[in-house]
Amino acid sequence: TLPNNSDEEVKVMVPPLNFAMVAPGVYRSGHPNRKNFPFLKKLKLKSIMCLSSDEFNEELSQFVKDQNIQIFHYKIDGNKEPFIEIEQKEISNALVKVLDIRNHPVLIHCNKGKHRIGCLVGCLRKLQKWSLTSIFHEYRRFAVTKVLADQEFIEIFSEHVPYNPDFKPDWL
Amino acid sequence: TLPNNSDEEVKVMVPPLNFAMVAPGVYRSGHPNRKNFPFLKKLKLKSIMCLSSDEFNEELSQFVKDQNIQIFHYKIDGNKEPFIEIEQKEISNALVKVLDIRNHPVLIHCNKGKHRIGCLVGCLRKLQKWSLTSIFHEYRRFAVTKVLADQEFIEIFSEHVPYNPDFKPDWL
Repeated sequence: TLPNNSDEEVKVMVPPLNFAMVAPGVYRSGHPNRKNFPFLKKLKLKSIMCLSSDEFNEELSQFVKDQNIQIFHYKIDGNKEPFIEIEQKEISNALVKVLDIRNHPVLIHCNKGKHRIGCLVGCLRKLQKWSLTSIFHEYRRFAVTKVLADQEFIEIFSEHVPYNPDFKPDWL
Repeated sequence: TLPNNSDEEVKVMVPPLNFAMVAPGVYRSGHPNRKNFPFLKKLKLKSIMCLSSDEFNEELSQFVKDQNIQIFHYKIDGNKEPFIEIEQKEISNALVKVLDIRNHPVLIHCNKGKHRIGCLVGCLRKLQKWSLTSIFHEYRRFAVTKVLADQEFIEIFSEHVPYNPDFKPDWL
């Protein structure tokens, strides 16, 4: 009973876990795997940014090679009370890549698309000057369980983000 | 302690309740009000679609007039067990407007940005051939409380959507 609205063969598209758009040219998700590849092709990605201390998945490596997609891999561990804290400088480095339209469309992902990506997006919203209330509301839509360390990280984030103004997206 | 990353005066931007991007050119939210206007200006909207049986809010009317934004008002009541059911035809009519890039960027909103918009977006995801699992996962991120009537609506939605292929977005 699927509507016949396309000339292409009807098949189910499976977006990666917690997939969503952040802003024009920027998508977020959990770790993409093989069943998400047809969906990812549709996005015509120029780059994928991975926030994870794990080694890069072989299946995904082959896919990005075939699709000529650039990879940015930042080996970041998530905030975890009381001992592990993300470095502001690391998030700033990652944001410089996200805020460069030459890398768009970019998919930013961590393992589950909740905490590390939630942190990065929260800091991005600060640069867009969103209210903290709306930033945390968005963060929690994906995180569900409360991770106060991340919300504190976003709130105190004040690292300078030296993006190139010539290539910044116009939604900033 | 906000980073000084912009030439503009620093002020807080307040997105409407449950604001998010659906796809390039399409935003979703709850009912926008005055405190959201600076944020909305940034989106450079061409149109706003309102799914609500309420009369159009005067403040918002003035804003859209000033900004030269086109309004689509569909007086739809949300699914409510056991007596109120959204008509498939109404959602199809609304989708034809959403799937016309001449109306982009478009903000689609209902009162809380949860149920009626969640329904519309779920049906849109069907046209994009997303798996039902990922459609419902997205729906619930916004709705939190379970509204099974909406999920059933999305699942059985099979109305033909007669959008114009010449002006369809390339993410479809």
